[in-house]
Amino acid sequence: MIRTLICAVALLLPMRGPAQIFTLTREQLIQLTAQNPFGRFPDGRPKVPDGLIARARGMSMEEIFAVLPSQGFHNQYADGFHVLYPAKKMVGRAFTVQFMPARPDLAAVINARGRVYNQTAIDMLQPGDVLVADLFGKVNDGTIVGDNLFYYMAKTAKCAGLVVDGAIRDLDGISEIDMPAYFRNAHPSYLTNVSITGINVPIRIGNATVMPGDLVVGDSEGVYFIPPQLVQQTVDDADIVHVHDEWTRRKFDEGKYKSSDIYGSPTDPALKKEYDEYLKKRLDEIRNRK
Amino acid sequence: MIRTLICAVALLLPMRGPAQIFTLTREQLIQLTAQNPFGRFPDGRPKVPDGLIARARGMSMEEIFAVLPSQGFHNQYADGFHVLYPAKKMVGRAFTVQFMPARPDLAAVINARGRVYNQTAIDMLQPGDVLVADLFGKVNDGTIVGDNLFYYMAKTAKCAGLVVDGAIRDLDGISEIDMPAYFRNAHPSYLTNVSITGINVPIRIGNATVMPGDLVVGDSEGVYFIPPQLVQQTVDDADIVHVHDEWTRRKFDEGKYKSSDIYGSPTDPALKKEYDEYLKKRLDEIRNRK
Amino acid sequence: MIRTLICAVALLLPMRGPAQIFTLTREQLIQLTAQNPFGRFPDGRPKVPDGLIARARGMSMEEIFAVLPSQGFHNQYADGFHVLYPAKKMVGRAFTVQFMPARPDLAAVINARGRVYNQTAIDMLQPGDVLVADLFGKVNDGTIVGDNLFYYMAKTAKCAGLVVDGAIRDLDGISEIDMPAYFRNAHPSYLTNVSITGINVPIRIGNATVMPGDLVVGDSEGVYFIPPQLVQQTVDDADIVHVHDEWTRRKFDEGKYKSSDIYGSPTDPALKKEYDEYLKKRLDEIRNRK
Amino acid sequence: MIRTLICAVALLLPMRGPAQIFTLTREQLIQLTAQNPFGRFPDGRPKVPDGLIARARGMSMEEIFAVLPSQGFHNQYADGFHVLYPAKKMVGRAFTVQFMPARPDLAAVINARGRVYNQTAIDMLQPGDVLVADLFGKVNDGTIVGDNLFYYMAKTAKCAGLVVDGAIRDLDGISEIDMPAYFRNAHPSYLTNVSITGINVPIRIGNATVMPGDLVVGDSEGVYFIPPQLVQQTVDDADIVHVHDEWTRRKFDEGKYKSSDIYGSPTDPALKKEYDEYLKKRLDEIRNRK
Amino acid sequence: MIRTLICAVALLLPMRGPAQIFTLTREQLIQLTAQNPFGRFPDGRPKVPDGLIARARGMSMEEIFAVLPSQGFHNQYADGFHVLYPAKKMVGRAFTVQFMPARPDLAAVINARGRVYNQTAIDMLQPGDVLVADLFGKVNDGTIVGDNLFYYMAKTAKCAGLVVDGAIRDLDGISEIDMPAYFRNAHPSYLTNVSITGINVPIRIGNATVMPGDLVVGDSEGVYFIPPQLVQQTVDDADIVHVHDEWTRRKFDEGKYKSSDIYGSPTDPALKKEYDEYLKKRLDEIRNRK
Amino acid sequence: MIRTLICAVALLLPMRGPAQIFTLTREQLIQLTAQNPFGRFPDGRPKVPDGLIARARGMSMEEIFAVLPSQGFHNQYADGFHVLYPAKKMVGRAFTVQFMPARPDLAAVINARGRVYNQTAIDMLQPGDVLVADLFGKVNDGTIVGDNLFYYMAKTAKCAGLVVDGAIRDLDGISEIDMPAYFRNAHPSYLTNVSITGINVPIRIGNATVMPGDLVVGDSEGVYFIPPQLVQQTVDDADIVHVHDEWTRRKFDEGKYKSSDIYGSPTDPALKKEYDEYLKKRLDEIRNRK
Repeated sequence: MIRTLICAVALLLPMRGPAQIFTLTREQLIQLTAQNPFGRFPDGRPKVPDGLIARARGMSMEEIFAVLPSQGFHNQYADGFHVLYPAKKMVGRAFTVQFMPARPDLAAVINARGRVYNQTAIDMLQPGDVLVADLFGKVNDGTIVGDNLFYYMAKTAKCAGLVVDGAIRDLDGISEIDMPAYFRNAHPSYLTNVSITGINVPIRIGNATVMPGDLVVGDSEGVYFIPPQLVQQTVDDADIVHVHDEWTRRKFDEGKYKSSDIYGSPTDPALKKEYDEYLKKRLDEIRNRK
Repeated sequence: MIRTLICAVALLLPMRGPAQIFTLTREQLIQLTAQNPFGRFPDGRPKVPDGLIARARGMSMEEIFAVLPSQGFHNQYADGFHVLYPAKKMVGRAFTVQFMPARPDLAAVINARGRVYNQTAIDMLQPGDVLVADLFGKVNDGTIVGDNLFYYMAKTAKCAGLVVDGAIRDLDGISEIDMPAYFRNAHPSYLTNVSITGINVPIRIGNATVMPGDLVVGDSEGVYFIPPQLVQQTVDDADIVHVHDEWTRRKFDEGKYKSSDIYGSPTDPALKKEYDEYLKKRLDEIRNRK
Repeated sequence: MIRTLICAVALLLPMRGPAQIFTLTREQLIQLTAQNPFGRFPDGRPKVPDGLIARARGMSMEEIFAVLPSQGFHNQYADGFHVLYPAKKMVGRAFTVQFMPARPDLAAVINARGRVYNQTAIDMLQPGDVLVADLFGKVNDGTIVGDNLFYYMAKTAKCAGLVVDGAIRDLDGISEIDMPAYFRNAHPSYLTNVSITGINVPIRIGNATVMPGDLVVGDSEGVYFIPPQLVQQTVDDADIVHVHDEWTRRKFDEGKYKSSDIYGSPTDPALKKEYDEYLKKRLDEIRNRK
Repeated sequence: MIRTLICAVALLLPMRGPAQIFTLTREQLIQLTAQNPFGRFPDGRPKVPDGLIARARGMSMEEIFAVLPSQGFHNQYADGFHVLYPAKKMVGRAFTVQFMPARPDLAAVINARGRVYNQTAIDMLQPGDVLVADLFGKVNDGTIVGDNLFYYMAKTAKCAGLVVDGAIRDLDGISEIDMPAYFRNAHPSYLTNVSITGINVPIRIGNATVMPGDLVVGDSEGVYFIPPQLVQQTVDDADIVHVHDEWTRRKFDEGKYKSSDIYGSPTDPALKKEYDEYLKKRLDEIRNRK
Repeated sequence: MIRTLICAVALLLPMRGPAQIFTLTREQLIQLTAQNPFGRFPDGRPKVPDGLIARARGMSMEEIFAVLPSQGFHNQYADGFHVLYPAKKMVGRAFTVQFMPARPDLAAVINARGRVYNQTAIDMLQPGDVLVADLFGKVNDGTIVGDNLFYYMAKTAKCAGLVVDGAIRDLDGISEIDMPAYFRNAHPSYLTNVSITGINVPIRIGNATVMPGDLVVGDSEGVYFIPPQLVQQTVDDADIVHVHDEWTRRKFDEGKYKSSDIYGSPTDPALKKEYDEYLKKRLDEIRNRK
Repeated sequence: MIRTLICAVALLLPMRGPAQIFTLTREQLIQLTAQNPFGRFPDGRPKVPDGLIARARGMSMEEIFAVLPSQGFHNQYADGFHVLYPAKKMVGRAFTVQFMPARPDLAAVINARGRVYNQTAIDMLQPGDVLVADLFGKVNDGTIVGDNLFYYMAKTAKCAGLVVDGAIRDLDGISEIDMPAYFRNAHPSYLTNVSITGINVPIRIGNATVMPGDLVVGDSEGVYFIPPQLVQQTVDDADIVHVHDEWTRRKFDEGKYKSSDIYGSPTDPALKKEYDEYLKKRLDEIRNRK
C-alpha cells in the first residue's frame, strides 16, 4: 500500500506540481542517502538491518558520542524532551515529517491531490520506524497524536517510537501504551494551524539534522540520530567501551586504586597489559556470542 | 461557621471599608455566577453535585477541550505545574484566593477587622473543594502551605486538592499525604511579603480565568477550570468519546485498517453504520448503568 | 461626566450586580486610600497636588528607593519595559485598570449595563493621569492602545503617560506623539480575548502593587508607584541627595580624595563639618526658592 | 547570470540528484506560487511591481494586520529582532534561504556540483530583494554576513534589506551602511557548522511561513511577509485607514468628544455621515494623485 | 595519600606559583573556617562528626530554613537541579571544586606541576564527602563524571553524594548506582574546554556560597549548605519542629479545631499549656534516646 | 597609595588569614600572568602599553575573533549587556573583582583587617583601567556603582570603562557621564548581601575567563578580553583586515564582480595579484605612518 502510494506520487511528479515540498522520489531519496551501506525500503529509504538494531539497544548515548563527532557529525543529538518511558531504550529507523505554520496558498498546493495531514504520514509508517516530526516547538494546537493514533502506531503499525519537536495530547491515555515517546509538552488541544511541508526529507530537531533512515536511539537523556553508514562502527566500538567499564569497575572494587590509576587508559604498564588482555578475551567472547 | 463569618462580613460591609477587596456577599456571588444550574453553598458559591464530580473523574483533558472552546471558553486551562501525583486525577470545586505583593497601607485596610492570611482562607474550605490560589508565580517567600496545613486540608477539611501559581514548602512531608497538588515549585521559605486581596473572587492562574465554584479537573498534563453550566454537557460528551476510543482500538486491533480509515469519522459507509450502532448500544449501557 | 458615571454605579450597586468587579464607590475608594493626606477626585481617588508633581520631576529612582523600603514599601517598583522615551521623565497620578483572560459568563456580568472595554477606562482619564493597566503580560491580542487612542490620551485627555503590562500597537505612529509610555512589546494585533475586571482597584504590575492615586514616576530604568502619603517625604529627601551629590562631585573634582573618603558620609571630621554646613546652606536656598 | 545558473540547475535536475533540497525549477516555483497576480523573475519567483512597493512604504504593520488574518493568513508576522534602523521602513521581495545544522553526508550531496554557501545565495539576489534566511536562531557561528557582504548587498546588488533568524557580524561596520536589517543578535564569529538546504523554497521565520516573492515589510516593531495576491488589497485598504486616522485626530483635536464617540465607527448618525463624506472625498484625492 | 599531596603543595607554595588559585594550605583553610567547633581533616577542612550527620538525616529543608536566615545566613540554599533520587536524603561534608572556562595561559599555570583535572579532585575525596562543583551551569562539554567515576565515588571513595552546577554523562548507567546526585542536566559529551581553578575554596552554586566542610543536606526540593558552627543548633531545633508537627496532626485528627486554632502557636491558653507539656515530655524522650 | 596598600597586605599575609581570597602578592600575580611581554604595575598586574591601546581602538570584534580562537583562546568574549554608549569603543586594562553571595562567617574573614567592599576596589583603580566585576548576574541589590562612584571613576580615576555581570544604579545620572559601561541591567537598589571574594584574581564574566591586565575591548556588540601576549599580533593582523575591506569595497563599487569573485581571497589570479600588491603598499603606508 505504501509502495503504491509512493509510486503514484513519483509518476505524477513532473506533471502536477512542486511535489518535492511533499516528498522525494525513490531515486532522489537514494541520492540523498548515497552512503547507506544497507538495503532500502521500496521508497528508497535506508533500512538499517534488524540485527544491528537489536545490538544498538545495548548502546549508551556516550558510546555514540564517542564515534559521531570524531567522524565530523557534530549535530546529531537532541534533548530537552519530556520522555514518556525514561527506563526504556528507543531504537528504530527515522521516518521524518516537517510541518510549517499554515498559510492558505501553500496549503492549496500541498493538498491539491488530496489532503495531506498527520495521518497521511502515520499511515505510511513501517514496522520498526520512529516517527520524527518537526513541529517547530509548537505546543498549543501542536499535538501530533493523541492516544488513539499513538495506539495505532504502537499496535497496528508496530512502530518503535515517536520524537516530536512539538506536543502530544491525551498524555494519560498514552501512558497506558507501551511505546517510547519524546515530546516537548502535552496539551489538550488539537493539531491545527499547520501544514505538512515534507515527508521523509531532511528535517531539523533542535540542533540535530535528521535524514530519513537514520538510526534513532533514545534513552532517559535525549535522542541520537545515527547516519546508517556509521551504525556498524558505533555498535562495534560500544563493545569495547562495555568491556572497559566492566574491567574498570572490577579494579575499583579491589579498592587499591585511585580513579586516575585506572580510568582512561591505565598508566601502570602492568595494569595496561592486564587490561589489554582482558579486552581481547572479552571481545572474543562477545563477538563470537553474537 | 463559614456561614456566620460570611454573614458578618456582609453586614459590616457598608460601614467598615472596601471589603470587596476581600470577599463578595452571597448576593454578589450569585450574580457573578448567574448561569450556575446547580445548588449553592451558604455563601452563594455554586455547588456542582457530587454525582457529576464522580462522573467527571473519568474525563480526560482532551474531552474537556472538545467542549469548552466550542462554547466560547478559550481561557480555562493552565499547565506548567509540578504535579504531586501525576497518576491521580484531581476533581473538585474551586475555592479561589488572590494574593498581591504586600504594601502596608493596603494591608492596614485588609486586616482592619482581624488579620487575613492564608489560614483565613484555609479555614473556610469545604469538603470537596480545591484551593486555587493566585500567588503570581512567587516561589521564594511564596509557599502557601507546608505539610501541616496540607495535612489539615486533606484530613480535616477533606479537600480535593490544591492549585497554586506559587510554591509549597515541606515537599518531602507533603509527599506522604494523599491529596493532589499542582504548584510552580517547592521552597523552604515561609509565605511572607504578600497580602490576600480576594477570597472567592475571579482570579487568574496562568492564562485561565477561574471563578469560585468552577469544577477543577487536573491530570498529569495540567488543570481545567470548567464553569458549572458546562459540566453536564462535558461529562455527557465524554461518554461518546470513550465509546469512540473503545471502538477505534478494536478496529485497529483487527489490523485491517489504516488510521485514516477509522480515526475521526469512518469514511466507509458500512464502517460508519457499524460505528453508529456500536455507539448507540454502548451509550445505552453506560447511561443506564449510572 | 466621570462623576455622574461613578455615582450611578454606586447607587445601582446593591440592586444590579457584583459591580465591585468593575469599580469602587467613592466611599470605598476613600477607605482603601485612607492615608492619603491630599485632596481627592470626585470619585474618591487621591489627588497628589500639581506642585508636588512638578517637584517630583527632579527625583531619580534611587532617591525614591532611599525612602520607600525604609517605610516598609518593598513592592512598588516595576521594570523590564520597552520605554518609549528613555530621556523623558514620566510623573503622574495612577489610574488603574485590571484585565483578565475573557470568559463569556464573566463578560456577561461585566457588560450587563453596557459594554465595558478599554475605551470605557480611557474616557474616564483626567489630566495628569497615568493609565496603569494589568494585561498580565499579554502581547499577541494584548494591545491596549494604538496611535489613535494614544493621541487621544495625550492631546484630548492630557494624560501624563501609560504603563501597561502588555502591548501597544502602531508603534511607529505612537512614536510621533509626545507622551511617555512603558510597555512589554509592540504588536500589530487588536486587543481581544480579554475582559476588564477592575477600574481603579488595586492591581499588580510585575512585582509592584499599584493603587489608584499613587504617584507614578518613570525614567529610563523603570517605574515607581509612590503612595500619596509618602510623596512629600520622598520629594524632600531628594533635595538632600541632590546637595550631597553636588558636594561629592565638587570634592572629587579637587582630585585629592579617594572615593571612600567622601562618598557615603565623610570620615574626616573636618570634611564632615564642611559637608554639613554646605548641606544646610544649599537646602535653605533650594527650599526658599520653591 | 542568475538566469543561466537557474537553467543549468533545472536541466541537470533529473539526472544529478535530489536538487530540490537546493532549489526549485521555474515550473515548480510557478506552481508553488500559483496565486501570484503579477509578473515573475526568470526563475519563476513572483515580482510584485515597483509601483506597489512604493505605495507599500506608507503602510503600517497594523494596516497589514487588518487584512491578512481576515483572509486566513494568520502566520505571516515575525518579531523579536534587533532592528538596525528602527526609523527606516523596509519593503522588498522575499528571496528565501534555508540553513540546517551541518552533517557531512548531506553536505556531500548539496555540494556535489560546486560548493553551496551563503555567497551562493547572495550572488543570486536581485535589486529590490530582501534576503530572508532561516538560520534557526543560531548566533554563535551563525552570522550570515559581515560588513563586506552587507556592503555588497546594499551597493552592488541593490537589495532592499535583510531578515535573518540568526546573527550578523561586524555590527559597527554594518551600522555605517544604509540598508535595513533584522537579526537576532550580532556576534564576532564566522558562519560555520551549517549547510544551505534550500534557496527560494518556503521557509519558517519565527512563527511565519515565508515564500519566495512575498512582499516583506518591516518597521520598528517587526516584519510582515505578504503573499503577492494580497498586496493590492492591503495597500488599498491602508488608504482608508489613513483617512480614518486623519479624521479621528481632527475630531479629537476639537476636544468635544470622548474616544468612544469617535474611535471605531462614530455612533452618532450625523458624525457617521460626516465621516463617510470625508472618507469619500479623501480617497478620491489620494487615488487620483497616484 | 591526600595528606602527602597537600603538604607538598603547601611546601612548594612560596616558590612555585600562585597555587592559591588551586588550593589553600592547612593554616589558610583553618583561618577561613575559624568558627568550626569540630575536628578537622589533615588538610584543615572542618569535619562535622558522624553522629551529627546521622541526626541531620532526619531534618527537612524547612527546619534548616528556620535557623539559618535568623542567624544571618541568607544564601545557603540552591535548587533547580535534576535530582537523581528524590526519595533519598543526601547528607555529607562539602568538598568544593571550582571550574572556569579554559584559557591556555591560565591552564599552563594550573598544570605547571602536573595536570589538574576532575580526577585530581575526585581522588582527594574522603568517605562521607559530597563533591560540590561549580561548572557555571555548563552542560555541553560540562559533564563532571560519567558512570565509571560515579561508581568510583560511590563504591571506592564512599562519598555521600554529588552536587554539580553543570552536567553528568551516562545517566542510564549512573541510575544503577546508589548515591544521591544533583545536576543541571545530563549530556553525552566529555568534560572539556574548562580548567579547575580551585579545590576546597569558597565557591558559588546558584545563589549559595559554599565553603569546604559545610554540611550538605539535599532532598527532593534542593540542597542546603550548613556552616559547621550552625549544625548542632539546626539539628536540635529540628527536634522541636518534629514534636510540634506530631502534636499538630494529632489535634487535627480530632477534627475539632480550625487550622488557625492549632497551627503556629495555639491561641487558647489551655491548648497552649497542653502543647508545652507535650513538647517537654517528647523532647526528653527523644534526647535521652539519642 | 595603591602600592602601599598592596605591600601591607603582602606583609601581613602569613599572619592574619587566607588573604588570597582577597588578592594576590606581586610575585603571585607575575607567575599567574607569566606570558605578559610588557611592563607591569607595582602590584604585578600586566600593563599593556598606551601606544597599543591607542591602536586597539581601531579594531573590531571580528578582527579579534580572527586571532584568539586560532591561538586556543575560545572563551574570551562576553555579550548580552546593556551598552551605555553603543557608538563609543571601550579599550582599557582589566582590573578584576569577584563577588559572592554574602555569608557572615566568610565576611568576618574578609573584613578582618578593615571592611572590604566595592569602594575598596574602586579606590585601587589606575588611569586606563576597566573595572571588570563578577556580580553573578545579580540585579536587585547588585548595583556596583551609582552616578557618584561612576563620576569618580571617570573623572578622578580616569578609568576607561566598566564591565559588570550585575547592575548599576542611577542610570539617568550615569548617562550624563562620558565613560563606557556594560551592565546586565539598571536597578534603583543599593549593593548589598554580597561579599568581595577577590581583587585582581581570574574571574568569569559570562563564558569568558578574565585575568587582571587583559586588554578589554568593547563595542556595540559585546566585550573581548585579550591576553597581553596576544595584543600585538591582534593589532597587527587587524591592519591587514582593514586593507582587505578597503580593497573589497572598491572592487564591489566597480559593480563588475559577484561577491564570490572578491570576498575571501580572489579566485582570479590577476585579481589575486592586484590584491596582494595593494595589500603590500597599504600596509607599508599604515605601518610607516605609525
